[in-house]
Amino acid sequence: MAAPKDMNYLFHETLKDIYFAEKHILRALPKMAKKAQSDQLREAFETHRDETEVQIERLDKVFDLIGKAPRAKTCDAILGLLDEGKEVMEDFAGTAALDPGLLSAAQAVEHYEISRYGTLKNWANQLGIKDAIPLLNATLSEEKKADDLLTKIALMKINVKALA
Amino acid sequence: MAAPKDMNYLFHETLKDIYFAEKHILRALPKMAKKAQSDQLREAFETHRDETEVQIERLDKVFDLIGKAPRAKTCDAILGLLDEGKEVMEDFAGTAALDPGLLSAAQAVEHYEISRYGTLKNWANQLGIKDAIPLLNATLSEEKKADDLLTKIALMKINVKALA
Repeated sequence: MAAPKDMNYLFHETLKDIYFAEKHILRALPKMAKKAQSDQLREAFETHRDETEVQIERLDKVFDLIGKAPRAKTCDAILGLLDEGKEVMEDFAGTAALDPGLLSAAQAVEHYEISRYGTLKNWANQLGIKDAIPLLNATLSEEKKADDLLTKIALMKINVKALA
Repeated sequence: MAAPKDMNYLFHETLKDIYFAEKHILRALPKMAKKAQSDQLREAFETHRDETEVQIERLDKVFDLIGKAPRAKTCDAILGLLDEGKEVMEDFAGTAALDPGLLSAAQAVEHYEISRYGTLKNWANQLGIKDAIPLLNATLSEEKKADDLLTKIALMKINVKALA
């Protein structure tokens, strides 16, 4: 029998969606780090790759808390978002616009995650899946911090330009 | 001759990307409003539809400021994001999870826009396109406010549940 389409089902479906997204982000980040021109941006991508590994482990735990096996479900949004990053890497290779383009693509991905984890944390609260809340919140905080760091790097370009 | 792949080109490409996104969001919002179960969510979508119309006009002005005709460029990210909304409307029609699902999809779209307008505003500053900054900033503020309102509606569900 199919599961009833209730909030528990929506929570589970959204968990599968972000699980798919994180797995793809994990594979995209080393490629983005390799292409980044500035050391700071490369390091930001490398650090976030390591964080993403832990974030996937946290999702494994949330699946466990709702008695489900961790499984991914195709997320077209993240595929589109990561394609934008790929396009930038191809179009702007060897130009001064490469890093700003990579920053822009990466921040769009961060914002997708911020929105997803915010939603999942709220739903975990509503559904009384108490032990999931700190797990989802830890990742939400990391994503916000990662986005803030990217903003900082993006804004630094102004100073570099002003000094030139 | 093809335009050089510099920051001006990247700014123009990203402007075409968000122009495409806004045009599609404008068409999606009335459908989402029609499906929303709560009055608050329906009104939020209707208000944001009107705001989106003005946001498109602001983008027209930014195109004009850089001496280009307003043109859209396919943005796979927004197509993926809006598809998630469509899927929710089909999958959760007539269930109590419909509004939470719509809220989740809409907030992912808002976050895409927040990330794009933040980036464009920063680039307008770096490129010295001064008159574009207040235009992009006005939309950025509206998107953040729209996201905050959706968060507020999403959190209210808890209270409804707690009172039930």
